[in-house]
Amino acid sequence: MAATPADVKEYPNSYVFVVDMPGLKSGDIKVQVEDDNVLLISGEMKREEEKEGAKYIRMERRIGKFMRKFSLPENANTDAISAVCQDGVLTVTVQKFPPPEPNKPKTIEVKIA
Amino acid sequence: MAATPADVKEYPNSYVFVVDMPGLKSGDIKVQVEDDNVLLISGEMKREEEKEGAKYIRMERRIGKFMRKFSLPENANTDAISAVCQDGVLTVTVQKFPPPEPNKPKTIEVKIA
Repeated sequence: MAATPADVKEYPNSYVFVVDMPGLKSGDIKVQVEDDNVLLISGEMKREEEKEGAKYIRMERRIGKFMRKFSLPENANTDAISAVCQDGVLTVTVQKFPPPEPNKPKTIEVKIA
Repeated sequence: MAATPADVKEYPNSYVFVVDMPGLKSGDIKVQVEDDNVLLISGEMKREEEKEGAKYIRMERRIGKFMRKFSLPENANTDAISAVCQDGVLTVTVQKFPPPEPNKPKTIEVKIA
């Protein structure tokens, strides 16, 4: 099971996972959430069917099944995930939960005794 | 200058060069022939402009300029080259010149003396 290079970015309101998938179409890629906090990206890179009479002179491109797993931070909202594949690059965006309201200092009115 | 993985295939009538270019569009890629027999493929992988407040947690994807050079065999027709980029994969097809006609055995009529 091969790996494929990925970037992970954090934005104020989201986490973004960018994964290289040259030659893959949206239908070849699976994006899942496991155990509530693991983002699982998998797929299969295929070489196209060979026409008769073809002969490989050089073979460097990776093929086969691949998988990437990312642990999601506690504030990741696994119900708000979107994924887009364009030009062989998959971008998965996971929204963050809004931060908890800061505890406002409580003001106690001082009465004149 | 980074390299990017490539496959090279030979067909009865052509040579085909398949190069991974995740994230690149046709306009970002240059395909040239140098010195009559060198196929030169180059381009630049860019990270998209960062929005304010973005922070990289992981950075594995290759970026920057890259180039691949391939020596073409003698029977490659450098006037018949086509290139297509789809799903982050560039495919360059170089037609072969037709093989020279085989020398047919010459038949000499045998006359009756």
